[in-house]
This record gives sequence, structure tokens and C-alpha cells, in this order.
Amino acid sequence: MSESHDSISELTRRICTFRDARDWAQFHSPKDLAVALTAEAGELLQHFVWQTPEQSLERVSSRRDEIAGEMADVAILLMEFAEVTGISLGEAVAAKLARNEQRYPVEKARGSNKKHNEL
Amino acid sequence: MSESHDSISELTRRICTFRDARDWAQFHSPKDLAVALTAEAGELLQHFVWQTPEQSLERVSSRRDEIAGEMADVAILLMEFAEVTGISLGEAVAAKLARNEQRYPVEKARGSNKKHNEL
Amino acid sequence: MSESHDSISELTRRICTFRDARDWAQFHSPKDLAVALTAEAGELLQHFVWQTPEQSLERVSSRRDEIAGEMADVAILLMEFAEVTGISLGEAVAAKLARNEQRYPVEKARGSNKKHNEL
Amino acid sequence: MSESHDSISELTRRICTFRDARDWAQFHSPKDLAVALTAEAGELLQHFVWQTPEQSLERVSSRRDEIAGEMADVAILLMEFAEVTGISLGEAVAAKLARNEQRYPVEKARGSNKKHNEL
Repeated sequence: MSESHDSISELTRRICTFRDARDWAQFHSPKDLAVALTAEAGELLQHFVWQTPEQSLERVSSRRDEIAGEMADVAILLMEFAEVTGISLGEAVAAKLARNEQRYPVEKARGSNKKHNEL
Repeated sequence: MSESHDSISELTRRICTFRDARDWAQFHSPKDLAVALTAEAGELLQHFVWQTPEQSLERVSSRRDEIAGEMADVAILLMEFAEVTGISLGEAVAAKLARNEQRYPVEKARGSNKKHNEL
Repeated sequence: MSESHDSISELTRRICTFRDARDWAQFHSPKDLAVALTAEAGELLQHFVWQTPEQSLERVSSRRDEIAGEMADVAILLMEFAEVTGISLGEAVAAKLARNEQRYPVEKARGSNKKHNEL
Repeated sequence: MSESHDSISELTRRICTFRDARDWAQFHSPKDLAVALTAEAGELLQHFVWQTPEQSLERVSSRRDEIAGEMADVAILLMEFAEVTGISLGEAVAAKLARNEQRYPVEKARGSNKKHNEL
């Protein structure tokens, strides 16, 4: 992977340049970004409706480009949401992983699909 | 931001280390990751129900930590989805931005909230 | 409206006849119905992405048939979910309305878009 | 079931009486109703995250009241959406079932979880 495609801040900069060239910030409130993100998550989910988990793996092979496109739509909206709200996506991920280490201790959570408050 | 929190591949590596320590890959098919991602997108959206776009900005101030947590949940699931499907999230974003440059030419799209097929 | 189109139990009966003629109950667990329902809700939402509330009214006029189709998909899945889980949709609605009467007293809730725990 | 709980038009009338007593129509554009509906669908889906289809049946038993409440929230918003847009929910369901009879002929669709355009 080229270095620039791995950097959240560099991708975010490109997303905002794209947006600002079109004067779209006026439409992109936190609410409207969350609406668009959820709608795109729904499009990703649509690929797997009625499928078994095993079939979902085959689907990823047969519809790779479309699924990559849905993933990208979610990612673009998430990075722009982070920029608009001034919350660092990378810091938020790191903080959540640290919190999940507390909520899901290895010895209790290993091999279980229960939620932390049901473990 | 520390360098490691800006790198998608580094964050993804940490997410997968967390998952594998708990032997959770068995539950994380593409379908199940898309289900979890959409449910978390819904939790983010829940913050903005009935609000005006302007109110959504205030909400981000007053509920900053919760909203950062929802953002992180979406991001973690998206990065793991990319890892499980073998699709590079950064490459997918770059490809989608290039495609959107074609679909939304600046001169037609500036200041408009129409979709590409309605411009 | 013809009487039969107004009856939840009659519509549900027709939905289940359709399903059973195709031997689809094997795919329609509560989880899979909730997945399909959420994906269809996302398709309904997709119509309103980036729009103002006012524009959303115009959209309903210009895309009436498509929007009716998305509404129907959500309704069909919701009625089948109720049938599969053995929960009466009509009773659940009546119980929730009674609960909301408690949570949103008229004198406190009138003209406010706040949630019950924020009133 | 009491007759009134089975009638979409009667339930819709009660939902709109509840809304109008609180002067909430001003917040309930088609967009805002679709946003709320999708967020509530996400809450229903949240119950089944990481579960197998079989586990989702047990979940319905152990969390019956909560799940009935999520179902009701989706139903209430869907009925109000129909009222606001002037689209008959019952007629839309009947029309979609007729269309699905065409798209999913019994002899082709029986026992298959494929979409109509993949049959």
C-alpha cells in the first residue's frame, strides 16, 4: 500500500478538498453525515441479506468491486464526520480498544460471542 | 496525533490482535461484521433523531465522549471487515474519490445536494 | 381502503402464505428478518440523504412509487418478524403508546423534540 | 386480539392523536421519520449482533418485552410515515406482494435464498 493511502489524516485531507471544491460543507452537518453513513452501511448490509455466514464469504469474492465501493462510502463519511466534529478517529479507536480490553478480559471472553454485560 | 494512531494498517493490526486473543474470528464473517457495523451506525444516528442540523452540532459538544465511542465502534468494524475480506480500505477510499471526481464534476456539482444521476 | 388491506392479521396471513409456498421459513430466523428489515429501512433512508426536511416532502411526490415500495418492504418484514416471534404487532404498538403517554406527558413534551430522559 | 389493535387505520389514528396532542408534526418530516425508523431498526438489529440464527430464537424468548418494544417503535414510525406521505401502508403491502409473485415464481424460487435478479 502506498504510504498516503494508509494515513487517516492524509485521506481525510483529500476527502475535505473534494468536498470544499464543491462547496458541500453547507449540507454536511453531523446529523446529515450520520444519515448518509447509516444509509451506506445499509447498502453494504444489503449484500448479505438471507445469506449464511459461509455464503457471505463467497459473496465477497463474486462482488468484490461493489463491496469495496460500499466500504469506501462508509469510510469516507466516517472520516468526514470525524473532521466536522473535531474528534480524532485514530485516537477514538485507540481509546475504545483500551476500554474493550477492560470490558472483555481474555479469560472471560475467549471463545464467547456474549456482550460484556452478559459475560 | 501519535503516528501509530494515524495508520490504518497499524490500527487494523491492533484490532486483529485483540480479536485473536479472544478467538473471535469464528464469529466474524463478512455478514456478521456488516450486521454489527450497521447496528453501530444506528447507534450513532440515534443521537441525532428529531434534531435540526444546527442542533446536531450542539449535540456533538454535549455528548462528545459517547459520540466518539460510536464513531470508534464503526471504525473498528470497518477496519476488521477490510481485513477479513482482504480489501484495502485506503485503496478503496482512493479509488472511490477518483470515481466521484468523474461523477461529480466541480462545475456541475458545486453548491448542489443532488445525486450524480440527478445532476 | 378495502377491509382486508387494513387488517394486520390478514396481511400477515398473506405474507406467510407467500413465504411458505416458496419454503423460505428456513432462511427467516428472527436475526435474518431483522437484518433484512434494517437493510430495507436503509433503502428508504437513502431517498433523503443530504436533503432538507422540506425537500423530503417534494421527494415523496416525485418518487412516490419507489418510496411506497420501500415502505412495503419494511412492513412485510416487520409483520413476518412478529409472526415468527409470536409477538402481536398491534398489541405491541398499543402497549408502547400507553408507555409513551407516561414518558411524554403532554404538558412537558408539547412542542419539544427532546427525548423523554432529557425533558 | 382486540379488533382495534388489528386495524392499521385505527392504530394510525391513535398514533397521530398522540403526536398532535404534543404538537410534534413540525419535527416529523418524511426525512426525520425515516431517520428515526432506521435508528429503531438498528436497535432491533442490535439484539442479534454476533448471534447464530438459532441463538436469535432463544434471544427472542429471553428478551421478549424489549424486542416487542423495538418492533413497536418501528411500526409506529412506519404508520406515521405512511400517514404523512399519504401512502396507504396496506395497499403498498398488497401491491408489493403482487409484484413479488411475479419476481419470485414458485417453481424458480422454492427453497432458494437468491434475489430475484440472481435466480
